[in-house]
Amino acid sequence: MKISEKVLDDFINEVASKSPTPGGGAVGAVVGALGAALVEMVASLTVGKKGYEDYEAEMERVISESSYRRKRLLEIADEDIKAFNDFMNTLKLPKDTPEKKKIRSEKLQESLKKACEVPYDLAREISKICPLANSVNKFGNKNAISDAKSAIALLDAAFKSAIANVEINLKSIKDEKFVSSMREAVDGLRGNVEKCISNGEGN
Amino acid sequence: MKISEKVLDDFINEVASKSPTPGGGAVGAVVGALGAALVEMVASLTVGKKGYEDYEAEMERVISESSYRRKRLLEIADEDIKAFNDFMNTLKLPKDTPEKKKIRSEKLQESLKKACEVPYDLAREISKICPLANSVNKFGNKNAISDAKSAIALLDAAFKSAIANVEINLKSIKDEKFVSSMREAVDGLRGNVEKCISNGEGN
Repeated sequence: MKISEKVLDDFINEVASKSPTPGGGAVGAVVGALGAALVEMVASLTVGKKGYEDYEAEMERVISESSYRRKRLLEIADEDIKAFNDFMNTLKLPKDTPEKKKIRSEKLQESLKKACEVPYDLAREISKICPLANSVNKFGNKNAISDAKSAIALLDAAFKSAIANVEINLKSIKDEKFVSSMREAVDGLRGNVEKCISNGEGN
Repeated sequence: MKISEKVLDDFINEVASKSPTPGGGAVGAVVGALGAALVEMVASLTVGKKGYEDYEAEMERVISESSYRRKRLLEIADEDIKAFNDFMNTLKLPKDTPEKKKIRSEKLQESLKKACEVPYDLAREISKICPLANSVNKFGNKNAISDAKSAIALLDAAFKSAIANVEINLKSIKDEKFVSSMREAVDGLRGNVEKCISNGEGN
C-alpha cells in the first residue's frame, strides 16, 4: 500500500515500530508534502481577497506548483522505503564464496547509491518549494501568516531530514567520485535552502 | 472524523484546500507526533542491540513516554481545529444592538484565548519530547542516527508552528494580564526547546 493511502494513525504507528521503515527519509517527505500543502492553502486564501489583487497571478502560480510538488513528495516517500528495503535484502545475499562476496559487495554499493539519491531528490524538491513558501509569506493573506511560518519551519525540517539520510548512506560508499559529486550537489542545495529559510523566518 | 482516522492523502488535500482548517497548528501537532514516533523507533532499534546494554532502561523509558505523548499530540491536532472553528462561528454572532455587540466581543475574546492555549499545549508537549529525542540521539543505535536527527528537526518545526499560532492570536487579545503571562510562559518554553534542539544538532 502506498503511504498516501494509509490511515494517519496506522502510518504513525508504523513509523514508531521496531521496523526501520518508514524512517526519517519517508517521514521527511511526508512533512515536506504537509509544508507544501500549507503553502497552497495560504495562496488559496489570498486569491480573490480584497487588497491582494496585485499578487493574484503569483498566488495562482504558487497553487499550481505546490500542488504538483506535494504529490511528487509522496512518491518520494514510497521510493525511500523501497530503497531501504532493497538495501536490507541485498545484505541477505550469500557471501560464502569469494565470487558471491564480490557480487554482494557490488550490489550493496549500488543499493547505497540509490539510498542516497532518493533523499537527494527529496532535498531538491524542497529547494523548489522554499521560494513558494517565501512568496506566500511575503505577499499572502496576512491573516494566514502563522500558516506561512509553519510551512517554512516544516520545509526546513524536511530538508534537514533529507540531508541526514544522504549523509548516513554516503559514509559507506566507496566510489569517491560519486561521494564528492553528491557532497557538492548537497552543499549547493543547502546554501539555497538556508538562504531561503532565513529570509522567510526574518520577515 | 478525528485527524488520526483520516487517510493521509485526504488529510493533506484538506490542509491544501481553501478552508483555513486544518492549519499550521493542527499540522504542527501531526508533525510533532511523527517526530515522537521516530524517537520511539530509534529507541526500539536500540533495545536488545549488542553494545547498548547500558542504555536499555533509558530506551524503555523513552519508548513509553514517546508513545504516550504522540497520542496526546494527535488529540491536540483535533483541539486546534475545534478552537479555530469555534472562533469562526463566534465571528458570525449578531452585532446589530450594542448589547449583542458586547456579548459577541466578549465571546470573541474567550475564543481567542482558547486559540492561544491549544498551540501553547502543543509547544509544551514538544518541550517534553525534545529531551527524549536528545537521549536517542546521544545513546541510541548509531545506525539510526539519521532518524534521530530527523526527529529533532521535526520537533523543532512543530514547536515553531505552535509558537507562530500562539503569537498570531495573542495580537487580538485585550486582556493584558493574559497576554503578558502567555508571553512569559512561551519565552520559558522557547529557551528550553532551543537549548535542547541546539544540543541535538550539535553532536
